Amino acid sequence: MRNEEYGRDSPIAAFATIPGKSAITLIRCSGKGSIECAADVFSAGKRLTQAEGNTIIHGWIVVPHEKLGMGSGERGKEGRVDEVLVSVFRAPKSYTGEDGLDVCCHGGVTAGKAVLDTLKKSGFKDALPGEFTFRAFMNGKLDLTRSESVMELVSAKTDTGRRHAINRLSGVLENEINEIKKTIVEALSEAEIFLDYSEDEIGADPDEVAGKLPGQDKVKETLTRLKKLAKSWQMEKIYQEGVLAVIAGRPNAGKSSLFNLLLKEERSIVTDIPGTTRDWIEAWISVEGIPARLADTAGLREARDLVEKIGVERSRELMEEAEIVLYIIDGETGINPEDTAFINEYKQKTKGTLLLLWNKKDIALPSQPEFGGNVLISISAKTGEGVAELAKAIVTAVLKQTDGENSDTNVTIGTAAVGTARQKNLVEASAAALEEALHLAANDEPLDLIAPLLRDAVNSLGEITGEVSTADILEEMFSRFCVGK
Amino acid sequence: MRNEEYGRDSPIAAFATIPGKSAITLIRCSGKGSIECAADVFSAGKRLTQAEGNTIIHGWIVVPHEKLGMGSGERGKEGRVDEVLVSVFRAPKSYTGEDGLDVCCHGGVTAGKAVLDTLKKSGFKDALPGEFTFRAFMNGKLDLTRSESVMELVSAKTDTGRRHAINRLSGVLENEINEIKKTIVEALSEAEIFLDYSEDEIGADPDEVAGKLPGQDKVKETLTRLKKLAKSWQMEKIYQEGVLAVIAGRPNAGKSSLFNLLLKEERSIVTDIPGTTRDWIEAWISVEGIPARLADTAGLREARDLVEKIGVERSRELMEEAEIVLYIIDGETGINPEDTAFINEYKQKTKGTLLLLWNKKDIALPSQPEFGGNVLISISAKTGEGVAELAKAIVTAVLKQTDGENSDTNVTIGTAAVGTARQKNLVEASAAALEEALHLAANDEPLDLIAPLLRDAVNSLGEITGEVSTADILEEMFSRFCVGK
Repeated sequence: MRNEEYGRDSPIAAFATIPGKSAITLIRCSGKGSIECAADVFSAGKRLTQAEGNTIIHGWIVVPHEKLGMGSGERGKEGRVDEVLVSVFRAPKSYTGEDGLDVCCHGGVTAGKAVLDTLKKSGFKDALPGEFTFRAFMNGKLDLTRSESVMELVSAKTDTGRRHAINRLSGVLENEINEIKKTIVEALSEAEIFLDYSEDEIGADPDEVAGKLPGQDKVKETLTRLKKLAKSWQMEKIYQEGVLAVIAGRPNAGKSSLFNLLLKEERSIVTDIPGTTRDWIEAWISVEGIPARLADTAGLREARDLVEKIGVERSRELMEEAEIVLYIIDGETGINPEDTAFINEYKQKTKGTLLLLWNKKDIALPSQPEFGGNVLISISAKTGEGVAELAKAIVTAVLKQTDGENSDTNVTIGTAAVGTARQKNLVEASAAALEEALHLAANDEPLDLIAPLLRDAVNSLGEITGEVSTADILEEMFSRFCVGK
Repeated sequence: MRNEEYGRDSPIAAFATIPGKSAITLIRCSGKGSIECAADVFSAGKRLTQAEGNTIIHGWIVVPHEKLGMGSGERGKEGRVDEVLVSVFRAPKSYTGEDGLDVCCHGGVTAGKAVLDTLKKSGFKDALPGEFTFRAFMNGKLDLTRSESVMELVSAKTDTGRRHAINRLSGVLENEINEIKKTIVEALSEAEIFLDYSEDEIGADPDEVAGKLPGQDKVKETLTRLKKLAKSWQMEKIYQEGVLAVIAGRPNAGKSSLFNLLLKEERSIVTDIPGTTRDWIEAWISVEGIPARLADTAGLREARDLVEKIGVERSRELMEEAEIVLYIIDGETGINPEDTAFINEYKQKTKGTLLLLWNKKDIALPSQPEFGGNVLISISAKTGEGVAELAKAIVTAVLKQTDGENSDTNVTIGTAAVGTARQKNLVEASAAALEEALHLAANDEPLDLIAPLLRDAVNSLGEITGEVSTADILEEMFSRFCVGK
């Protein structure tokens, strides 16, 4: 448990947008009495408390006269904090299922802060990360798969990733889980009726009904669906977390040109990872919807002194982490011993995929179709020729690594896939229980040993959607959300 | 004129918040037919077109089936782009005075972009910077002083700056200008009646009414008000643009400690100015509401090689630009010849204010109360002692420089002040015309020479609020706004 706990329904408020130089800052408020709280610091307080749900009231956030040390009376310009539009939501028709407000104030560094401070003085507390969505879940507005997809959506790095998240937000995963669960529940209840009936009514020996798992074929089909779901995580994880692709090669082979070309051709999605000092340049790009963290290891180029030696060392470490290494051969000079040495060393050391790029094809075509078993991909970082082939090669390599060679990178809209490791683990637990149940049935084991396994399978699925869940799991899950969500 | 021109009332859309990892991204839409346009890509299109103003509709932004290459029919999950809340505004009750919508979609890099792209496919164009506020002005929703205050508010660097902008947004400046204008208009119309009357009706010679400027005392009072307004710009400019304060001193005098202390004590408002490489560290702080760009000139410390020499050179240039130089003397070692040389050199070169800080007062008190005519301000960057006195000294220095020694740094709420150079120039033009009119009146010049000057004064004031204005001025003014405003 964390130090601070989610409130049950007390008024909370938080920035729902990033404060900065923009037209608007939106502050989200929710909780029992939140509309009345806000009315205390609103120029048209009465209109606010009387407002119907899903309506918008225009006015000013004000510091009441009493608090300014003035007499009471009509609220004037004296305490004006900001001019705002307030969207009013009435329970249960709101994101959280509680009464709530969205306060649209002016953008900039100071206006939103002043409004939030004023709201806090009137009784709102700062919302903790994920607290709004936590309340939405607690109030039955979203199941857990949809709740998780909200955060996934906010973090989506490519448009494909976004579409996967939207799929889950639409309830596609929830429906698939519920359908599978229904099939197992049916088998389970038939089994239980059978057990009850045979024992109590006709006194049949449970051993006699051994191996006769009701709806066995349907359960088998269900197992296939669960395994497919579990496997979907391999690609989903990549869509969410992306792969690391490192550009390497000798000086002047064209590393930086390729880096810049890929940034330009494929739409750059995040230009820079903020944070620590780096010895290389990197940027996120989208390779046919797969987010790739592309790194140009300038450090490999030369090592004249200690500082540069450290840089080269780090670049090598980065290459060992990478899923994909794009090794550029200078087509003008051809493959030289330095290239050969690197390629051989790399192959021994890592489990990533090495793609050999023959650069400058506009000047010189490859002398051979492959090198050391690797196909040479001809490109021209200058003219852009061959970049489409390169993108395809990257996607193929990623699919191969994820054992998903036959996966379709085009999202089949409406196809269920798991979106978090938590979901995947529960799907696997459910599948394992089913597999064991079918195994027992095949060995003619008694039904009263099989039934509990079916119950385990159902419980795991229930945990995915949140029917069955513990406070700890919920706290852990929602606290990874951003504030305001 | 710019290449792209503001549309008159065509549907426009733009991000009104900063896209990024936040709960919500808000897209603002406005224009004739904008609600119908949005309805084409909304899951509940009919509810949207029938919605009353100031209401909120929940639904999905969708790509219609036709555009997905499917048959028509009910819109399903297939083309879902994002789940949104749409606030509907009906003309004239909206920010722009037109029909409009605020589309609240999910945060993140991709969701908002996908929604905006979909809206653009259904007929919206990207809004140009300031286009929403331009339309609000054109539709009579805001006068020019309020329009300008909107941008001022978004850019406000300190809470004091915000309060000044809110003052103008509330119409305080607009009211003051209109009151002054009314007085002049009254004098003008009396003068004109008198001129007409004397000529036509009783054939009086205009010379006979020379020097008899009607309402002369009131016009004089008005001139005083205008001059006060024009002068207010000196402090307003500082609240908006801030001052540059540079920390200098010998190595180990405590420059970085002071820098960090000021950042911690006074609330840091912008931690870093993004952009070019710098040879010094800097951050914006608020000194009693005055935004100060505080720079720690690490480069001054030493110059062992060429690179460092260039750094020192740049630091010196920075100091010459600075309004305030905080020169730290190491209290432990006292004033040494290097300090003396710097102080003497600085005094000759710049017009900024030099504040001498005696640091480490916790170890050693100043040996003398002043040095070379400058009071020594005792501080301890270590314990924080003396920081309040330093802040006061900075404010006093700033007020002295702006000729505003008697200015009140506490915003007297409700007091009119100009917020832009444009407003200040027009106030000055109006004051100059009035001054000339009063001068002519004092010299008994004829009324028909004085009346046109009064008219000039009125016109200048009309330009401030936007009653009189040219397309060029408007385009220039609004194009400095941020997109979405």
